[in-house]
Amino acid sequence: MITLLTDFGLKDIYVGVMKGVIATINPNINIVDLTHEIAPQDIAAGRFCLMNAYSYFPSKTVHIAVVDPGVGSHRRAVAIEFEGGFLVGPDNGIFSGILSETKAISAVELTNNKYWRTPAPSTTFHGRDIFAPVGAYLAGGVNIKELGNVIDIQSLVKFPIAEFKKIEQGIIGCIQYIDHFGNLVTNIPAGVVEKRNWRVELGNISMVAGKTYSDVKAGEFVSLTGSHGWVEIAVNSGNAAAILHITIGEQVTVVWVK
Amino acid sequence: MITLLTDFGLKDIYVGVMKGVIATINPNINIVDLTHEIAPQDIAAGRFCLMNAYSYFPSKTVHIAVVDPGVGSHRRAVAIEFEGGFLVGPDNGIFSGILSETKAISAVELTNNKYWRTPAPSTTFHGRDIFAPVGAYLAGGVNIKELGNVIDIQSLVKFPIAEFKKIEQGIIGCIQYIDHFGNLVTNIPAGVVEKRNWRVELGNISMVAGKTYSDVKAGEFVSLTGSHGWVEIAVNSGNAAAILHITIGEQVTVVWVK
Amino acid sequence: MITLLTDFGLKDIYVGVMKGVIATINPNINIVDLTHEIAPQDIAAGRFCLMNAYSYFPSKTVHIAVVDPGVGSHRRAVAIEFEGGFLVGPDNGIFSGILSETKAISAVELTNNKYWRTPAPSTTFHGRDIFAPVGAYLAGGVNIKELGNVIDIQSLVKFPIAEFKKIEQGIIGCIQYIDHFGNLVTNIPAGVVEKRNWRVELGNISMVAGKTYSDVKAGEFVSLTGSHGWVEIAVNSGNAAAILHITIGEQVTVVWVK
Repeated sequence: MITLLTDFGLKDIYVGVMKGVIATINPNINIVDLTHEIAPQDIAAGRFCLMNAYSYFPSKTVHIAVVDPGVGSHRRAVAIEFEGGFLVGPDNGIFSGILSETKAISAVELTNNKYWRTPAPSTTFHGRDIFAPVGAYLAGGVNIKELGNVIDIQSLVKFPIAEFKKIEQGIIGCIQYIDHFGNLVTNIPAGVVEKRNWRVELGNISMVAGKTYSDVKAGEFVSLTGSHGWVEIAVNSGNAAAILHITIGEQVTVVWVK
Repeated sequence: MITLLTDFGLKDIYVGVMKGVIATINPNINIVDLTHEIAPQDIAAGRFCLMNAYSYFPSKTVHIAVVDPGVGSHRRAVAIEFEGGFLVGPDNGIFSGILSETKAISAVELTNNKYWRTPAPSTTFHGRDIFAPVGAYLAGGVNIKELGNVIDIQSLVKFPIAEFKKIEQGIIGCIQYIDHFGNLVTNIPAGVVEKRNWRVELGNISMVAGKTYSDVKAGEFVSLTGSHGWVEIAVNSGNAAAILHITIGEQVTVVWVK
Repeated sequence: MITLLTDFGLKDIYVGVMKGVIATINPNINIVDLTHEIAPQDIAAGRFCLMNAYSYFPSKTVHIAVVDPGVGSHRRAVAIEFEGGFLVGPDNGIFSGILSETKAISAVELTNNKYWRTPAPSTTFHGRDIFAPVGAYLAGGVNIKELGNVIDIQSLVKFPIAEFKKIEQGIIGCIQYIDHFGNLVTNIPAGVVEKRNWRVELGNISMVAGKTYSDVKAGEFVSLTGSHGWVEIAVNSGNAAAILHITIGEQVTVVWVK
């Protein structure tokens, strides 16, 4: 099985072409789209989506991620073996989230053009010419070490998530992702708050902690530990991001309550 | 085979994660996306889409629908066996359209956590933790009665479509759905008008009944019985909804013509 | 294998229903979405996307394309055998791009209603009632000549791409497509410029030719030969179309540089 995550959108044929390349190499691979609506060049959003998705897939799944502003430049193309399967994409930190939670076992730079679609790949579409074919071969059982030179796991580009900070009264964090519903996902893991009572402050708004959206009336704010495992801010039957005009990075505070 | 219909959008990984959960249980299930662009919490649109889609799928297909503003609250999670296969989702009326056209055979409340992804499901993402795994087991042949307590079919939440009204001069109905092209789908079934001549009145606009869009010139209004089996209003090579600034629920009248 | 390209969007169930029809006929067909976000009725965009995608799929792939403003009128429904597989859709020129690059072998008008979903198809949704089932039968091995009357390949509707013009100083062309990233794709094939030095002029902006986006600083314009094989204009980490307010058809000039 292969998953695809890109910033290609669904208007063009880029994603379909990657699937054609995979099927040409191995028609029996099951392909699942994680998302193709990552904002153009938004590596942080790609990192967030990947780290919250990978654990729901069968072991040995190959996750191909293409958010790649440096395509065709000197950034490395890599494949990484980790406990849950394989990661294929540019070495720009997009896999940092997964690798902060789990262990990389080995990594290679994709230098063996025998496993590319063509030995003369496009300088602007490595998704089609390198990552899709490499992913298809990996999913078909080719050994990762065939794909290129082994590299030091420590040399992989790191793009760490902004750290939250514990203070006496609670925790200071920030918004790291806004989902389709306008729910605001912070960088504060659910585990940090799960044994205490708390509320969230954002600007001059204070939100009670609930268990689910409908714990408050329609249109009211609620904070909760969301399904991805982070403290979240939502509006029951509404769009918190649209109401608050929030952008990524804005500060939020979890405040302990007796 | 499983179909998925949600209001999750395609920006996030929610849909991909449901597919990962299904593939982890049974990698041989064919999954088709009906749509994930139902407006957030719009159960009526979900009901409309499901009732116009189910009959085109093989028998025994499992249709999973997740438009679920009450997730984590006291609303029931259900599976329903009907003539065309199985329905899995929240008991909030989203299956009312299908069940107005066909017969429910049996229904269960999803109480057996052996068939969930985890016995401690998220309070905000039952699509991942309950509906996807239950759908995968159903598609793999598990008997519906294994999934939980049998419930009375009559107890399922009903969310009936607004009724049209026959008057001497014709039929009064309303707009129940607006599609991607801006075509306005009414709640008046094609069967009610098929043996007569008619036109449609909407506000102060009168539209001739045609057989297809190009029966009128580009930019002109036409009414017809659409592919889903309802009286529809369209503009040839144009977007009727954008031109008319119409919203769901607006009244339309079919007027008999000699 | 079947690919689907339509202007149906992803909000409605049209695409899902086509997949249900295909699976009902033959559940073992692998279906890939090329795109469903072609602008409504934009045959030129459909033609562009198809011609840049087909060559990446396995031989014998069936490409179904439904951008069909004339549905239900006198336009023909056709299937075409070509070197790469089969094409199924309306005879409105949408396959002109592919057929300008490769050879049609035979063509039929889809008149044999034995291979339709129903002998009485909808007048507004031939994708569901004619093209999807015909594609499923073709992919399953039915001979194209079973599907209807053989027609002269020369009689297929042609919709040629606007021609570029060689002048002494370079080449005058135009923008033929704008992708999700706002990259501007011209109608000037990469082959025409590949052995010379050049830059591109658009209005009063002049752009150096590079090999990839990051050959210029973030926010700067670059022209290059894109992954589809055309001269393209892009902005590194930006959206050229949004910055320039460009629309399809706008003139661009490649200027030879010593």
